[in-house]
Amino acid sequence: MNIIQLDENVSLTRDLESGTEKQQDSVQAIIRKVREKGDQGLKDLTEMYDGVQLDELFVSEEEYAEAYKDFDDRSLDALQRAIGNIRSFHKKQIRQSWMTTEEDGTMLGQKITPLDYAGVYVPGGKAAYPSTIMMNVIPAQTAGVRNIIMTSPPNQDGKLTPAVLVTAAELGVTHILKAGGAQAVAALAYGTESVPRVDKITGPGNIYVALAKRAVFGQVDIDMIAGPSEIVVLADDSTRPDYAAADLLSQAEHDEMSSAVMVTTSRTIAEKTKAEVETQLADLPRKEIAEASIKNHGAIYVADSLDEAVEAVNELAPEHLELLIQDPHALLGKIRHAGAIFLGSNSSEPVGDYMAGPNHVLPTNGTARFSSPLSVDDFTKKSSIISYSEQAFLQEADDIAAIARMEGLEAHARAVEIRGKGEK
Amino acid sequence: MNIIQLDENVSLTRDLESGTEKQQDSVQAIIRKVREKGDQGLKDLTEMYDGVQLDELFVSEEEYAEAYKDFDDRSLDALQRAIGNIRSFHKKQIRQSWMTTEEDGTMLGQKITPLDYAGVYVPGGKAAYPSTIMMNVIPAQTAGVRNIIMTSPPNQDGKLTPAVLVTAAELGVTHILKAGGAQAVAALAYGTESVPRVDKITGPGNIYVALAKRAVFGQVDIDMIAGPSEIVVLADDSTRPDYAAADLLSQAEHDEMSSAVMVTTSRTIAEKTKAEVETQLADLPRKEIAEASIKNHGAIYVADSLDEAVEAVNELAPEHLELLIQDPHALLGKIRHAGAIFLGSNSSEPVGDYMAGPNHVLPTNGTARFSSPLSVDDFTKKSSIISYSEQAFLQEADDIAAIARMEGLEAHARAVEIRGKGEK
Repeated sequence: MNIIQLDENVSLTRDLESGTEKQQDSVQAIIRKVREKGDQGLKDLTEMYDGVQLDELFVSEEEYAEAYKDFDDRSLDALQRAIGNIRSFHKKQIRQSWMTTEEDGTMLGQKITPLDYAGVYVPGGKAAYPSTIMMNVIPAQTAGVRNIIMTSPPNQDGKLTPAVLVTAAELGVTHILKAGGAQAVAALAYGTESVPRVDKITGPGNIYVALAKRAVFGQVDIDMIAGPSEIVVLADDSTRPDYAAADLLSQAEHDEMSSAVMVTTSRTIAEKTKAEVETQLADLPRKEIAEASIKNHGAIYVADSLDEAVEAVNELAPEHLELLIQDPHALLGKIRHAGAIFLGSNSSEPVGDYMAGPNHVLPTNGTARFSSPLSVDDFTKKSSIISYSEQAFLQEADDIAAIARMEGLEAHARAVEIRGKGEK
Repeated sequence: MNIIQLDENVSLTRDLESGTEKQQDSVQAIIRKVREKGDQGLKDLTEMYDGVQLDELFVSEEEYAEAYKDFDDRSLDALQRAIGNIRSFHKKQIRQSWMTTEEDGTMLGQKITPLDYAGVYVPGGKAAYPSTIMMNVIPAQTAGVRNIIMTSPPNQDGKLTPAVLVTAAELGVTHILKAGGAQAVAALAYGTESVPRVDKITGPGNIYVALAKRAVFGQVDIDMIAGPSEIVVLADDSTRPDYAAADLLSQAEHDEMSSAVMVTTSRTIAEKTKAEVETQLADLPRKEIAEASIKNHGAIYVADSLDEAVEAVNELAPEHLELLIQDPHALLGKIRHAGAIFLGSNSSEPVGDYMAGPNHVLPTNGTARFSSPLSVDDFTKKSSIISYSEQAFLQEADDIAAIARMEGLEAHARAVEIRGKGEK
């Protein structure tokens, strides 16, 4: 892990992965196949990519029941507590439709309605994370989405893992499609005989899933294209290097592409943290992944002042930001761009990943500049309400016609001027 | 204009325009050129596509002053009234950051911050609409965006129209780039020597602009890809056919691809409206465009009941919906998908296009199923706040570690368990 003195020449940004041409072509071909062949296309592609022939595309009641048998009570307790906390936080995000009323009778407002259908992609294999399901399903449910279709690739026995099935069951998800990759995204976006077309697809996935989501964007809505995960730990001379190192490694173990970065005002803490990272790495089960991540994308930047450090943080616009400093609350106002901000030494990133309540689906790779954690808002949409009174209409009719004519749109002007004239 | 009896076999959806391969390649080449050559690339492309050699890429103070000389007071009054109404409605959308505090000291919340930079695309030529500028700039300003870069293609004299310049000046927009097409989008997305990289690009444009926005999505945020504009007029036997026809035509005159549709419970009103459309078409300045739109994309659907009519409306998920019926307010709760809902006979679509206050940038082509009018929300983003107390942390530490291990992420579990141990 390199220690780098911050100055103007240090580049803090990374490019977005956009896939090779071959990958893009392959995704286009998969989407076409699902659109043309529907359920059969989906089954063929699942056989080809997941190596299993499915009779039934959806998880059965028996499979749900079976999953509970293979799941221990301790884990169930933990999931239930997490579900409770996450529901509680997301309920606070619910917004109401609103309306203004003028004395003349005019009403203006915004009507907020949930989406009809949401699709949640859950990766398969070892990365089949219960937390992914909770964090994507709960905001949709809280928004009031009535139809949630979850999709996840089956293993070679045509099954999903007990942890995935139990988490879904605890949340009340009743429709789980056994499909992964671009084919699952295509089925959700366009619908098949048995899969309803959804309005929005969320959830993480590999490059094929990301490319498919980008390709169907517009046909349906999607969440952001997820890049590799990142953490930035902001440290001063009060920071415990062992905490900082542990938090950096919890990010690094995700993926070799993950990025774990410290920005600190203290060279001593920088050096101690570097040493701690090496010590703690030694006996991690996912040591190889974490080591590669730290080596290629890890860094410790030393800043001359807290202001310079904050500037670097805003430029990085990190997915996760830990303010592991003496007085984190005093600094909050200066943080302009970050997906989630963790304040103080008890707010280790895993607290937010699993338990605290806020969503762990966060803008990656600098996109916190313009995007937000997944939320209830993402599963609702607004309609403007315009109810004009005759009085208001007559008062503004001339101005409306004037602007219409400024734009050369005569029919717009006439639609206003025909009002108030007697019926022929 | 065909009158069609609604039944299960009537298809109400249209496909999204995705551009030809040649158009897509051309857009990719333009983006590459701007990324590689910066300002000079932008100037070269402007010479190629707009036929003008520019010395200065940005509008000068003199050009602003000049524009006012060519602009009449009547039009200025109308613009100022519209600006006032639009600002007033958008101010009501401003949301506050929020925080919950637990007795044990834990704080959770959402911090809302404006984007740093917004880019607004304004089409050139005859479609240089002052209303486009107001509707894109005002939500960004209301959100608190400090840097707004507007861009619009220059005419062959290297100028923008007085209406565009005056509207921008009235709004306080000080940075106007003279560029259009995919090159303008590329400059905003990646930045050049003189154009700052923005965080989000909004505004309508032709197919090249739409493809460029899609291509840079992820690098920056974009609003939805705008399709052709639509109106659905819901009518019963109380509807005035002349009003309905005028409103349908105000949509049809936009573009040959525009769609103007009536859904009605009354065959008599259907027939009278059809006749009125023909009469009113006769002397419209944009008759050819409106006629083509009505012929190819216009229709009058007759429903057996108001419920069936509402179902068709929800399936269409129209950009603009007029409830031109006896009791529009009673029906509002049943409308699930529409960009803007106009209630009653005084709420003609142009009222909302220019004056009422709600945004006229609306989800087109059925995307009201999942997207919303442009709003202040679109120019802000959220950060989650997680500040855990020691008490809350200790209470949940075991559950957090349990879920981490369920997911096979040992470093996550250890980041939790290292807390509370004495420093080495």
